Amino acid sequence: MTSLFRVKHLGFSSGAPLVVIDDGSAAALGVRAHDRLLLRKGGREVTAIVNVALQMPADTILVNEEVARSLNLSEGDVVEIEPAPPPRSSRYIRELIDGAWLNPQEIRTIVEDIVRDRLSDIELAALVVAVSRRGLSVEEAYQFSRAMVETGERLDLGVKPVLDKHSIGGIPGDKTTLLVVPILASLGYYVPKTSSRAITSPAGTADRAEVLMPVNLSLEEIKRVVLKVGGCIAWGGALRLAPADDKIIRVEHPLSIDPFLVPSIIAKKAAVGATHVVLDIPVGRGAKVGTMREAEQLARMFIEVARRMGIQLTAVVTFGDQPLGNTAGPALEAREALLALSGQGPADVVDKATSLVGSLLELIGVTNGKALALEAIRSGKALAKLREIIREQGGDPNVKPEDLPVGEKTFTIYAERDGVVTWVNNTAVATLARLAGAPKDKGAGVLLHAKLGDVVKKGDPLLTVHSEHSTKLQAAEAYLETATVFEVGRPGLDTVMRKIVEPVLPIQQMAVEH
Amino acid sequence: MTSLFRVKHLGFSSGAPLVVIDDGSAAALGVRAHDRLLLRKGGREVTAIVNVALQMPADTILVNEEVARSLNLSEGDVVEIEPAPPPRSSRYIRELIDGAWLNPQEIRTIVEDIVRDRLSDIELAALVVAVSRRGLSVEEAYQFSRAMVETGERLDLGVKPVLDKHSIGGIPGDKTTLLVVPILASLGYYVPKTSSRAITSPAGTADRAEVLMPVNLSLEEIKRVVLKVGGCIAWGGALRLAPADDKIIRVEHPLSIDPFLVPSIIAKKAAVGATHVVLDIPVGRGAKVGTMREAEQLARMFIEVARRMGIQLTAVVTFGDQPLGNTAGPALEAREALLALSGQGPADVVDKATSLVGSLLELIGVTNGKALALEAIRSGKALAKLREIIREQGGDPNVKPEDLPVGEKTFTIYAERDGVVTWVNNTAVATLARLAGAPKDKGAGVLLHAKLGDVVKKGDPLLTVHSEHSTKLQAAEAYLETATVFEVGRPGLDTVMRKIVEPVLPIQQMAVEH
Repeated sequence: MTSLFRVKHLGFSSGAPLVVIDDGSAAALGVRAHDRLLLRKGGREVTAIVNVALQMPADTILVNEEVARSLNLSEGDVVEIEPAPPPRSSRYIRELIDGAWLNPQEIRTIVEDIVRDRLSDIELAALVVAVSRRGLSVEEAYQFSRAMVETGERLDLGVKPVLDKHSIGGIPGDKTTLLVVPILASLGYYVPKTSSRAITSPAGTADRAEVLMPVNLSLEEIKRVVLKVGGCIAWGGALRLAPADDKIIRVEHPLSIDPFLVPSIIAKKAAVGATHVVLDIPVGRGAKVGTMREAEQLARMFIEVARRMGIQLTAVVTFGDQPLGNTAGPALEAREALLALSGQGPADVVDKATSLVGSLLELIGVTNGKALALEAIRSGKALAKLREIIREQGGDPNVKPEDLPVGEKTFTIYAERDGVVTWVNNTAVATLARLAGAPKDKGAGVLLHAKLGDVVKKGDPLLTVHSEHSTKLQAAEAYLETATVFEVGRPGLDTVMRKIVEPVLPIQQMAVEH
Repeated sequence: MTSLFRVKHLGFSSGAPLVVIDDGSAAALGVRAHDRLLLRKGGREVTAIVNVALQMPADTILVNEEVARSLNLSEGDVVEIEPAPPPRSSRYIRELIDGAWLNPQEIRTIVEDIVRDRLSDIELAALVVAVSRRGLSVEEAYQFSRAMVETGERLDLGVKPVLDKHSIGGIPGDKTTLLVVPILASLGYYVPKTSSRAITSPAGTADRAEVLMPVNLSLEEIKRVVLKVGGCIAWGGALRLAPADDKIIRVEHPLSIDPFLVPSIIAKKAAVGATHVVLDIPVGRGAKVGTMREAEQLARMFIEVARRMGIQLTAVVTFGDQPLGNTAGPALEAREALLALSGQGPADVVDKATSLVGSLLELIGVTNGKALALEAIRSGKALAKLREIIREQGGDPNVKPEDLPVGEKTFTIYAERDGVVTWVNNTAVATLARLAGAPKDKGAGVLLHAKLGDVVKKGDPLLTVHSEHSTKLQAAEAYLETATVFEVGRPGLDTVMRKIVEPVLPIQQMAVEH
C-alpha cells in the first residue's frame, strides 16, 4: 500500500539514506523505527531507514541529502512511500544470533548489503555482537575478507613483491611505520602503506605522517608515488578499500569490540595488492593482547586467512607493556621518527622497526634483513628515502625535527620515591596525551623521561605533558588525580600488583579509556 | 574542553535527547556517531546521543525537542558542548558481550540507564543480542524483572488476589483474553488486564478490544474500572509499567528476537500487582515454540522467576498448530468473542478460555474452575460482565456482533482436491490478514471455513479474506501466489512435509514474516 508524503529537508547528509516520519503515520504504514521505507518519485526510487518522531505533522517526511539526491527532491515535493522488506542479510544476521554458521553466499550478501547501506545500525550492531560472542571460523574470516575486497576499490601496482606492515595496535607511541616504509623502500622494495587515524589513541600512523606531509592521497597518487620512490604513507580512510570494513568499524567503536579484526586487516592488505605482510602483535598486561597464548591463536588465524587470500604473512609478537620510544602524540612522534632515522633514535624504536623489516624480508628469502635495515639507517639511505617520500607526497623534504612545533604549555610529573620503574601505564599515557589535545592538536602529547627498568631518584622527572591550550593541559593535570601513570618500586620484589576487594571486571577491561 | 555551538531545531521529538553535528566538529571534539555530548546553557545541562552529519555548517548543532525542552533553547541560541563519557552500564554491556554474568547492581544500573535514555540504540542492540546468544540465568531474569518494575509506575488495587493471564503469542486469532477477563470478573475476581497492540500479528488484544471500547485508560481509570466491575481490558503501552521493557522491545523488534521475554512479561504482571497468573504457551510447528521440551524449559523459567517476584504462576501448553477459532483481524475476532460468550462460539475458543480460567483458579484453591467458567458462559453472566466492562471503559454496552463492520472487499480460496485439512499455515494466515489491512483497518482480516482435520471436497471454501480497500485486497491475493495456506491430503499418510534440497534455515526461522 502506498501513501503520499510531503518532503522537508533535514539539511544534512548522514552516509546512508535516512527519513523521519511521525509516529502516527509509522503506525498506519506498519513500520517502526529502524524499519525501511521505499520512496518513489518520477520513476526513481530509493530505500531508506526510518526514524520515527513525535510531534511532527502527519503528512510530512523529513529526508536527508542522500534521499534528496537519489530522488532529486525539492522541499514541498510529494513522494510515494511504502514499507520495504528488510534485505536478505537481515535474516542471516538473525541466524547468526542463534549461533548458525554463515556460508560464503550469505557472507557475500551481508557484505554487499553493508556496502550499499541496506542494513540499519541496529542490524550492524547485532552482526558485530553476535560475531564477538561466537567468533569467526577461519573459513568465515576468509570469506568476509574476500567479500570485503571484492566490494571495494583495489590498488594494482603491476609489480611484485608488494610488501606491507600492520600493527594490531594498543600501545601508545608506536611510530614504527614511519621507519619501516622508508627502510624497505631504500632497499628497493614497493610498500604502498595505507594507515588510519587515531580512534581512541593519541596518534594513528596517518596523524603522525601528516605532521611531515599530506597523507590524503588518491589511489592514483599512491600508485604514482610508490612506483616512483618505492613507498608511501597515506591515509586509507577515504579510499574505499574494503569499504564494508569502514562501516563495521562505525558500530564496533562505540561498543569497544573488534570481532572483525582479522578480515578487516587482511582485506585492507589484499586491496592494496600486498603479497607479503609482517603483522605486529604487541603483548603485555597493558596492551590489547594480554598473553602469549592469545597472541599465538590470533597469529595462526591471521596466517591462515592471509594464505587463503594469496598473501604470505608473518606475525611478530612484540613487547607491549609500555609505550614505544619516549613520545606519544603526532608531532612529538614525527620528531622521534626523524631522529631515529638519523641514528639518534630510542633503541626500542630502532630495534622494533628493523626487526619487523627482517621478519618481512625473510618471507621473500632475504635472511639478513635486520642487518640490511640497520645499515640503511646508519648510511642515511633510509632517511634520504623518507625525504623523497615526503617530497613526492607534497611535504617539505628538508624538514628537521626542531621544525615541528610541539605544544608549549607543559607540566611534568616526578618520581615520589627512589627505585626502579616497574610499570608504565599505557592507558594513562594515552589518556594524558588525548586530554592534552592529541591527535587533533598535532603538537600535543607526552614525553617520557623514564621507562621500565630505569633507576630513578625521588624528584627525577618521569614524564612531561605538552599541550597547545592551557584548558586542555589542565584537563590532563586533573586526570592525574585519579590515575597512576608510573609505578616505582623494587622490581620483582614488590609482588602485589593490585588488590581486588569486590567483584569487578577483568583487568583487561578496566584498561579501556576514560 | 568546551566548545560553543549555535542551535537549530530538528523540529521533532524522538523519545530521547538527540543532537546532530557535522563530521569536522565531531572529529575536533573527539566524538563519533553514537557517542554522547553534554550540552550546557544557563545552568542547565543535558546529555544527548550524537549523530554525525556531512555537509552541515561547522558551528551548528541540530537539537530535537527533548534537548530543546531540557535547556529551554530557541533557534539561534548558543550552547556549550563537550564530550560526555558513556554511562556505567555501557561497560557492563561490553562485559556481557564477552560472556560475563551480571550482578544485581549491574542489572539495576543497566535498567535505570535504559529508562533514562542514556544508552544508544547500538548499545541496546548489543544488550539484546548478547543476551540472546547467551540466555539469562534465572537469577538475572529475576533481577531484570525486579529492576524493570521498580523503575516504572505501579498499579495498587488494594485487594487480593489479583488474577492475570498472559499468552506468549505466536498464533493468529487468539482472542482468549476477551473471554477470560469477563468470565473471571463474573465469578467475583479482580483482573486488571493490560495488553499490547499487534507488532507483527494481525491483531493484539488491545486492537481486538478497541473494536468494542476505548482501551487507552490511565492507571487511575484502570483502578476505578476494576474495583467497580472486577476487570478491564486496557492498552498497556503508554502506562509506563516497566518502561525499560518498552524500550528494549524497540530494538528487539527489528531483529526479530525476544531474549527478555521472561523478565518482560513477569515485570508487566508484577507492575499491575498480579498475585496469580496463568501463562499460555502455544506449541506447534507453526507457533513460536516448536516442541514440548522447549515449552517445558520456558515454563519452568517463568514459574521460578515469578515465584521470586512473589507471583504464583501456572503455565499451560496449548495447541499451536493452527489459528484459534475461525477469525483473525480485530473486528472479526471481536465478533467471534461476543458470539463465543453468547454460547455460539467455536469450540476451541471456548475450551481454551475456560481451561485457562480453570488452571488459574486452581492456584487459589478452586478445583472446579473450568466448570464454573463454562457455567458463566451458559448462564450469560460472562457476557453481561463484558458489557459492564465495555460500559465502564466508555463503549456501547449493547453492541451486537453484527454491529461491528468488517471489510466488504473479499476473496475466497477453495479446496483444490478432496481430502482432509492437514496443515493450516499460521504465518500465511497472519500475513494475509495484515496485507488486507489488519490491525490498522479494524475490519480487515481472515475468516477460516475449514480447520485441521476437517473433511473437504474439491471446490469447498477454505478461507475468505476481508479488506476495506481493493488495493490491500489485491496485495493479499498476490501473496497467495507464493504461499501455501492450507494443505489438504491424507492425514498421517502423506508423510512428506517439506523437501529441502539446499542448505537453508531451520523451519522455525523460515516461518518469520518476510
